Amino acid sequence: MTVELMATAEHAPHREEFAALYAQVQQFYAHQMRILDADADADADADADTDGEGCWAATFTEDAVVELPLLPTPLRARVGLTHYARAAADRRRRAGSRLHHWVGMLDVRPRPDGTLHTRCSALAHATPPGASSKVLYVCVMEDVLVRTHATWRTAHRRITRDDLASP
Amino acid sequence: MTVELMATAEHAPHREEFAALYAQVQQFYAHQMRILDADADADADADADTDGEGCWAATFTEDAVVELPLLPTPLRARVGLTHYARAAADRRRRAGSRLHHWVGMLDVRPRPDGTLHTRCSALAHATPPGASSKVLYVCVMEDVLVRTHATWRTAHRRITRDDLASP
Amino acid sequence: MTVELMATAEHAPHREEFAALYAQVQQFYAHQMRILDADADADADADADTDGEGCWAATFTEDAVVELPLLPTPLRARVGLTHYARAAADRRRRAGSRLHHWVGMLDVRPRPDGTLHTRCSALAHATPPGASSKVLYVCVMEDVLVRTHATWRTAHRRITRDDLASP
Repeated sequence: MTVELMATAEHAPHREEFAALYAQVQQFYAHQMRILDADADADADADADTDGEGCWAATFTEDAVVELPLLPTPLRARVGLTHYARAAADRRRRAGSRLHHWVGMLDVRPRPDGTLHTRCSALAHATPPGASSKVLYVCVMEDVLVRTHATWRTAHRRITRDDLASP
Repeated sequence: MTVELMATAEHAPHREEFAALYAQVQQFYAHQMRILDADADADADADADTDGEGCWAATFTEDAVVELPLLPTPLRARVGLTHYARAAADRRRRAGSRLHHWVGMLDVRPRPDGTLHTRCSALAHATPPGASSKVLYVCVMEDVLVRTHATWRTAHRRITRDDLASP
Repeated sequence: MTVELMATAEHAPHREEFAALYAQVQQFYAHQMRILDADADADADADADTDGEGCWAATFTEDAVVELPLLPTPLRARVGLTHYARAAADRRRRAGSRLHHWVGMLDVRPRPDGTLHTRCSALAHATPPGASSKVLYVCVMEDVLVRTHATWRTAHRRITRDDLASP
């Protein structure tokens, strides 16, 4: 930590400013993951919010790049994200399970260009109707967040899953 | 998020003020859930704290209303909460498991009347003596928090469990 | 909560100051647990960071004391911690699983001497290659944190595991 802190010391925000950013990012992930799970359920209920504002893809920048563990190339821009999320929702609907994402262990590094480099753990539970919840996977998310229109959005994301990591 | 933020923009607190509220609410839930789990254990150990201040019910307002997934009508006021928590503790004692609640994915919305509308995920693990922990359920908690005597308390709670949600 | 808050009221920090501490401690645990898990993996990959700064033991004070559930006496100082962490990494390497620690439910109590008394829940998931993640254990961590060189470090830790608690 010492090394990393020194490296960014000149851009280190004031203590209260850091707390403000940290709270905003926690709220951002709570929102982003909630609508990811809700989009899937809404899709299953055939009453998906399609106005583009409430949907998961809108929490990413227009030109966001997302690197996912099982895809050979990164997903580019919102159109790819929307397609990917809908396909995932389709799979879950067929499986009959409700998905619940959980983000924690948040590390926030403000950068001199005003972006935030974040690293967090994400946990997904799947719950079939009337049955016990099961851990689906544990992964690490590394994001670059940018502020647009007073809202943070993900510009770049890299996901590493524990079950797919090299041993 | 854009829409919801605009709707409350005129009551949006200053960034540092939001961080202060967000930290307070995280601390509040850590405390409320800790004594919920501790009350259950204390009950099992037959040395329950009965002074009414340290107990779980005291983290709710006198006239709190709690909507729980398996109950046909909401629980009203602390007497109902205390009765419900004790019955749950009894069931756990008989089952021999230790319960551990976890709250995360917190969303905090300050309202013009000074209350906080919060939404979070809650996870419960049950651990039998000497055995592995198991996920008991994943749920969503939506609270209205009010400040009384410099302390936040739950005035209204609605719990939705993933395993009991309509498919 | 009322009682505990009153007891520390004279040392209660300003709201924004509390939020600053709370965010710092969350970031601290995210860092400490990340390198704990990374040290284990690095060890397994035979490219462990051995410069003493990036490693887990450096997030403790030189004379830290750690009380662990299965050890008859507390671990003392960094040498004990390093030895213990390497032994644990060895066991995990043989078991072939990736370990992922998660900290939450954080309670932070600033003390008049400038230390922080914290209490949090910790969850560990183990993931074998290509297989589902499993909950390994749920525990409670009670720390005394001290600030040295602008960084928080653990001076004392007591861990209580749910599966090893008296019934």
